[in-house]
Amino acid sequence: MNLEETTVNSALVYDGKVVKLFLDDVLIQNGEKVKRERIIHPGGVGILALTDEGDILLVKQFRYGAMQVIDEIPAGKLEPFEDPEECGRRELYEETGYKAASFEKLLELYPTPAYDSEKIYVYFASQLTKIDDETHLDDDEFLENIAVPAEEALRRIIKGEITDAKTVAAVMKAKLLGKF
Amino acid sequence: MNLEETTVNSALVYDGKVVKLFLDDVLIQNGEKVKRERIIHPGGVGILALTDEGDILLVKQFRYGAMQVIDEIPAGKLEPFEDPEECGRRELYEETGYKAASFEKLLELYPTPAYDSEKIYVYFASQLTKIDDETHLDDDEFLENIAVPAEEALRRIIKGEITDAKTVAAVMKAKLLGKF
Repeated sequence: MNLEETTVNSALVYDGKVVKLFLDDVLIQNGEKVKRERIIHPGGVGILALTDEGDILLVKQFRYGAMQVIDEIPAGKLEPFEDPEECGRRELYEETGYKAASFEKLLELYPTPAYDSEKIYVYFASQLTKIDDETHLDDDEFLENIAVPAEEALRRIIKGEITDAKTVAAVMKAKLLGKF
Repeated sequence: MNLEETTVNSALVYDGKVVKLFLDDVLIQNGEKVKRERIIHPGGVGILALTDEGDILLVKQFRYGAMQVIDEIPAGKLEPFEDPEECGRRELYEETGYKAASFEKLLELYPTPAYDSEKIYVYFASQLTKIDDETHLDDDEFLENIAVPAEEALRRIIKGEITDAKTVAAVMKAKLLGKF
């Protein structure tokens, strides 16, 4: 079966700071033309950072989409033309003050592929050194750093207390790969 | 640290079929007022369905946000006031023709908590019976059903060939819980 869809026309309906929203005319599989909404997001990077003591670094942060404070791995948006690994190293430093001697790709996720272009790159960072006791956040960014033993973070995920998708996927994959 | 943010004003900038987009004035932690974009989505439900033969049911589908054909567990949007479990049973039947005697909550995820309200509920469905060889899809929905041995689905996730967040999280959690 041919599953492809073809964009016939694309209309920008909102051009924002974080997202753009397009309303497109799309030719679908039965030859009909339908409207599809598509959010364009620059993409994100998360970092599963494991200290030499076996702790995972998490940040506690009010997330305006979910309208609540949630725990998640350090993460941020890609800047234009930024390499995902560079972004990951930058965000790890900005949000936690740590640098990592080892930084490897852990996984890539589409969090909401149906209507949003966002792709999230997640890295596994280890051999950490704390460079700075201060964080270097954006003016509108406030967060609390916590360090949680890896098995405890996994337990909180299994119990449903951590619900951020990239964090859930990253910690479980690290466990299955024997990283802790 | 008080991490809460307070919405002072909320302006609807786009009211679509799948999403609404609001541009809000928000009082942040340092007392300043900033603009925040928030996408409102009705929420979604995914179903990790495991057959008696040990296969996981996947659907192959063009996803307009990701602009590609991807493999994922059956899933759909919540209808207004719909119970997530009812939605899961409905979507499983509509997309695969199966009904499940056992249907239990597996996990809840916020795929993109920073700017999108969407919450995804994922159920683990087993003791499956194929009720119908036909699918019952929306007019603009086309997909291909595949059944993949559970360990093979996990291998594809570990290798990075399956990237849909709810699918990645659901299969790994089912593995860690000893469901296969």
